[in-house]
Amino acid sequence: MGSLHDGNSNGKVITCKAAVAWGPGQPLVIEEVCVDPPQKMEVRVKILFTSICHTDLSAWQGENESHQVYPRILGHEASGIVESVGEGVIDLKEGDHVVPIFNGECGDCVYCKHDKTNLCEKFRVNPFNKVMVGDGKCRFSTKSDKKPIFHFLNTSTFTEYTVLDSACVVKIDPEAPLKKMTLLSCGVSTGLGGAWNAADVKAGTTVAVFGLGAVGLAAAEGARTRGASKIIGVDINSQKFIKGQAMGMTDFFNPKDLDKPVHEKIREITGGGVDYSFECAGNVDVLREAFLSTHDGWGLTVVLGVHPTPRMLPLHPMELFDGRRIVGSVFGDFKGKTQLPHFAKECMRGAVNLEGFITHELPFSQINEAFQLLIDGKSLRCLLHL
Amino acid sequence: MGSLHDGNSNGKVITCKAAVAWGPGQPLVIEEVCVDPPQKMEVRVKILFTSICHTDLSAWQGENESHQVYPRILGHEASGIVESVGEGVIDLKEGDHVVPIFNGECGDCVYCKHDKTNLCEKFRVNPFNKVMVGDGKCRFSTKSDKKPIFHFLNTSTFTEYTVLDSACVVKIDPEAPLKKMTLLSCGVSTGLGGAWNAADVKAGTTVAVFGLGAVGLAAAEGARTRGASKIIGVDINSQKFIKGQAMGMTDFFNPKDLDKPVHEKIREITGGGVDYSFECAGNVDVLREAFLSTHDGWGLTVVLGVHPTPRMLPLHPMELFDGRRIVGSVFGDFKGKTQLPHFAKECMRGAVNLEGFITHELPFSQINEAFQLLIDGKSLRCLLHL
Repeated sequence: MGSLHDGNSNGKVITCKAAVAWGPGQPLVIEEVCVDPPQKMEVRVKILFTSICHTDLSAWQGENESHQVYPRILGHEASGIVESVGEGVIDLKEGDHVVPIFNGECGDCVYCKHDKTNLCEKFRVNPFNKVMVGDGKCRFSTKSDKKPIFHFLNTSTFTEYTVLDSACVVKIDPEAPLKKMTLLSCGVSTGLGGAWNAADVKAGTTVAVFGLGAVGLAAAEGARTRGASKIIGVDINSQKFIKGQAMGMTDFFNPKDLDKPVHEKIREITGGGVDYSFECAGNVDVLREAFLSTHDGWGLTVVLGVHPTPRMLPLHPMELFDGRRIVGSVFGDFKGKTQLPHFAKECMRGAVNLEGFITHELPFSQINEAFQLLIDGKSLRCLLHL
Repeated sequence: MGSLHDGNSNGKVITCKAAVAWGPGQPLVIEEVCVDPPQKMEVRVKILFTSICHTDLSAWQGENESHQVYPRILGHEASGIVESVGEGVIDLKEGDHVVPIFNGECGDCVYCKHDKTNLCEKFRVNPFNKVMVGDGKCRFSTKSDKKPIFHFLNTSTFTEYTVLDSACVVKIDPEAPLKKMTLLSCGVSTGLGGAWNAADVKAGTTVAVFGLGAVGLAAAEGARTRGASKIIGVDINSQKFIKGQAMGMTDFFNPKDLDKPVHEKIREITGGGVDYSFECAGNVDVLREAFLSTHDGWGLTVVLGVHPTPRMLPLHPMELFDGRRIVGSVFGDFKGKTQLPHFAKECMRGAVNLEGFITHELPFSQINEAFQLLIDGKSLRCLLHL
């Protein structure tokens, strides 16, 4: 079992290898699991590549209540091929090349029909959801005693086969290189979309990016492709400036090396502040610096980082009258099913430097090493081959 | 002296009556003051009508450090006629009908040239400024001992004659009724512009207005003129609903009468929340309700109220990911000199109900009574005739 080419898996339970989380911070266990056939409006996908994002890390470490669900198959950034589809699925079929999205698009709800949001009513990102939306059950179970294994972020990609609602599966051009397309599944789309969609960066403008992980570098890449004239990177790890420079960033500040708040330095070198800033660090103090680093009157801060803190926004209501704006963006404001196929084509024609984001590659069996690379700040994205 | 038609005041000091603030909460004293001629780029204006806004009230009461400046001539909402102009003023001349603006527009700075802000570099609203921007001096002095009397909000309109920088004087159509044009000087422009410019309310959308003073009712009027289908008023004084209804608001909630937060009620009657909300109460708890009353995914809250509080924004960074947005707006985002003349014309052709905002009229000598009407919540705008 487990091969797409057996041609006899359709409608049957598949037994395959998955990396199962059994407790907070415990090494993932690669073990045999059972994957049920896709039900109504669902799709079973053979995962070929998956990578690890900070949200997987937070979940693996059990940072909060939404994460403390075991056993569970984590992972949400991946690419693969449709193995079979359930009843009612008409836009996907066996053999399609696909990318899973944790922030789905049903296409039918009031949100999907609204042009200003990509938050689907049923399939928006929800870390508390641990089962299939259709019937509230799991499609994964342990091979030994058939106990349910929970889902994660509508996706669960640390497995050779997974089941997703079709709203969370994007078909892409079969000519697109699947390995690189994995990046479109989360981090790169979030950052690039932050610049393209949420900020709508214009040519000749100035940009500051706070936090130079994959999302931050993708925001910078989005700004670069739009023709920003200055792209300032801010990180407390100066090692990250090497990668930032290679990817076209123009200036760097390490707040630890400064004798004044970084927003003051940024205002100094930009004639009053940048046009856009991106908060990709998930830290509210950084958020305030990002906010203040923009030009009064028209500056826009796009929050892309996740903020697992009880602290409220460190902004005073009167500060809004200085004309600085702040918005949050999920998945870079991309409506996944509608817009990602086009984004993939843009990548195929070389508009976006995807190469730069893949710093490591490992076999799936070494997933725990891949986690460690991310924890150590050594990798942007480590691609796991299944 | 004191008459525009003497024809001999040009270049000379004018002695006239003004209402002078001598201490926090002390009744204003109507007394003779000296008004110097306008200097370079300044304009001396004969005030015909002035009214009182909450900002005057805060300043009169000496709410904070920026207000504790005495003696001072308060007032910023007015209309009048140019008496004379200083060197270099080419867009205004004696006899022009004008409206003062506390948020000026020099036309030359980087802000004035930017299409996304109405915050002029030199003449943006600044409660701490108490002198003329040009030379840092006062144009007012006491008649008895020629001691300086300080300016307020670039305007100081509680006087028969005032001196303003030309950046803070808007020429309007001489056919426009000056009395009603007074309203364009602050409150009505702030509210209407909040709906027209900051929110850009679309036809068929839903709106909630928190705080039904002049600014709130003007925001509602702005939404009405744009064709909003539902305009919900929220105030803790139900008496204000009478006026709101007369001005076209469709629904009302008094939070004191509800057994749940008002945002929940608003979500119930709007299928998930309004498209736009306006915070016109100047209270951070109200601000949070206004924010939560909008629809997730695309709701926009425009903050128009002034928040004299040390409290920060009561919003969590993760709440931004629900797609609700919040912005502040000064003077309804109007670029005063550029846009108010057109706005005045819109009012002349009856597009906006200005009548409804003038609830009282009194002679200038009764200015202290006019203050009391505002304190008691009895007046929207009391027009003082000079």
